[in-house]
Amino acid sequence: MNDADVLQRLEDRGLELPPPPEPVASYVPVTVVGSVAFVAGQVPIVDGQLVHPGKLGTSVSVEMGQEAAALAALQALSALRHHLGGRLDRVARIAQVTVFVAADVEFVEHSKVANGASDLLVDVLGPQGRHARAAVGVASLPLGSCVELVLTAGLSAEGA
Amino acid sequence: MNDADVLQRLEDRGLELPPPPEPVASYVPVTVVGSVAFVAGQVPIVDGQLVHPGKLGTSVSVEMGQEAAALAALQALSALRHHLGGRLDRVARIAQVTVFVAADVEFVEHSKVANGASDLLVDVLGPQGRHARAAVGVASLPLGSCVELVLTAGLSAEGA
Amino acid sequence: MNDADVLQRLEDRGLELPPPPEPVASYVPVTVVGSVAFVAGQVPIVDGQLVHPGKLGTSVSVEMGQEAAALAALQALSALRHHLGGRLDRVARIAQVTVFVAADVEFVEHSKVANGASDLLVDVLGPQGRHARAAVGVASLPLGSCVELVLTAGLSAEGA
Repeated sequence: MNDADVLQRLEDRGLELPPPPEPVASYVPVTVVGSVAFVAGQVPIVDGQLVHPGKLGTSVSVEMGQEAAALAALQALSALRHHLGGRLDRVARIAQVTVFVAADVEFVEHSKVANGASDLLVDVLGPQGRHARAAVGVASLPLGSCVELVLTAGLSAEGA
Repeated sequence: MNDADVLQRLEDRGLELPPPPEPVASYVPVTVVGSVAFVAGQVPIVDGQLVHPGKLGTSVSVEMGQEAAALAALQALSALRHHLGGRLDRVARIAQVTVFVAADVEFVEHSKVANGASDLLVDVLGPQGRHARAAVGVASLPLGSCVELVLTAGLSAEGA
Repeated sequence: MNDADVLQRLEDRGLELPPPPEPVASYVPVTVVGSVAFVAGQVPIVDGQLVHPGKLGTSVSVEMGQEAAALAALQALSALRHHLGGRLDRVARIAQVTVFVAADVEFVEHSKVANGASDLLVDVLGPQGRHARAAVGVASLPLGSCVELVLTAGLSAEGA
C-alpha cells in the first residue's frame, strides 16, 4: 500500500484524510502487537462536530449512516498513518472492521450502513483494503454517534 | 486439528459444514495476518433463509438462539476451511468467539445462547476448540438475525 | 511489566487482584495465539455477586459504571496473570479494550464509564497499560451486568 498512491486516490475522489485523533488521557489511537495494529473505536467527527448523530431506523437515514461510516473509516486510516510515521506503506492488509450502528430494535440494514466504510476502504486501498467485517446494531454510542468503527490491520515488517 | 476427523465428528452428530459464505463486494469471509485468522461476522442462514429471526427475550427462545448460534459457528468453520484450501488442518486453536445476541433489554441469558456455539466448537474440534468468549446483547442485527458470531482463530505455520 | 511492581501499585491503591475466573465448560478465560493473548469477556463479580447490575442512563450512575468497569479490568488482569503462571511479567502491552455498557438508548457518556477501566489499567500498569479502546452501549448483558469488558494483550517471548 503505497502512501502517495492512497493520498492520490483520496484526492481523485474529493476526499482527504482528517487530522489524526488526539491521544486521550488513558487510551491511545493505535497499538501494535507483532504485525497486528489495533485502532481505537472511531466516531465520525468533522471540525469538532459529530456527523449525523442519532439512530438508524429513526432519525438517521441509511445514506447518512453510510457517510458517517465512511468518515469513521477515514479517521481510522488517519490514526494508523500517523502512528506509522505519516506513511501508510506498512499497512499490508485491513484485517477486520467492526461497525457498531446505533439502531432501532426493528432496524435490519446494518450491512448497507457498514458498506459505507467497506466500500471506501477498498476504493482507496485496493485489494489490500478487503477485510473481514461484522455489522451490529447497538442501543447507543458515545456522544450520541450513529456509528462507531473498530479497525484491525496487518502490518508488514518494519523497513519492508 | 485433522480435517477428516472433524468431518467425521460432524457426521457422527448428524451435522455437516454448510457451503462456505460467498465473498461480498467489499469485504471477505476470512483474512489472515501472521498466524491469526479473522472470520467475518456470521448470521445463521440455511438455504438462503435466516434461521430463527427475532429477539431473545421476546420471540426467540433460548433453545432457538442456541441452535442459531451453533449454525453460525458451523458457518464460521466452513468459511475458515474454505480459505485454508478445503482443510481445517492448519487451525491450531479457536482464539476468540464473540456472540452478539439480539435481545430485549431485560434479557439475561446471553451465556446460555452463546453455549450453543461454544459447545459445538469443543464437541467438534476437541480441546483446540476451547476459546475466550464474550456474549453481548444488542439492539438489532443484520436482516433481523437473532445472533451474529465473530470468530478469530490461531493457525499453525503453512506446510506444518 | 514487573509482577511485584504491579501488585505493589495495587496495594498502594487499596486494591487487589480478584481470584482468577474459573474456566467454564466450553470456553476458557484466556487463549494465546503467537504473541497475542485474548481474555474472555468479564462482568464484574465480587464474592459471587454481580456489582451494580442494571443500565446506565436509568438505574446505574456513571460513577457506579466506572467502578464496575474497573473491577472487570482487574478480573481480566487476574485471568491473564493466572494463565501466565501467576506472573504478569510477560504482558508487554495492553493492546485493545472493548467496554460494552448496558445503556439506555439516550445514554451518551459511554467513554466516561470506560475510563473507569482505562484509568485503572494505566494507573497500575504504567505506559504499557495504554490501549486502543472502544466503548459501546448495548441492550443487555449476561446476568444483567452493567458492563462487560473484553481485553487483548501483547506478550513478550517466553523466558524473556
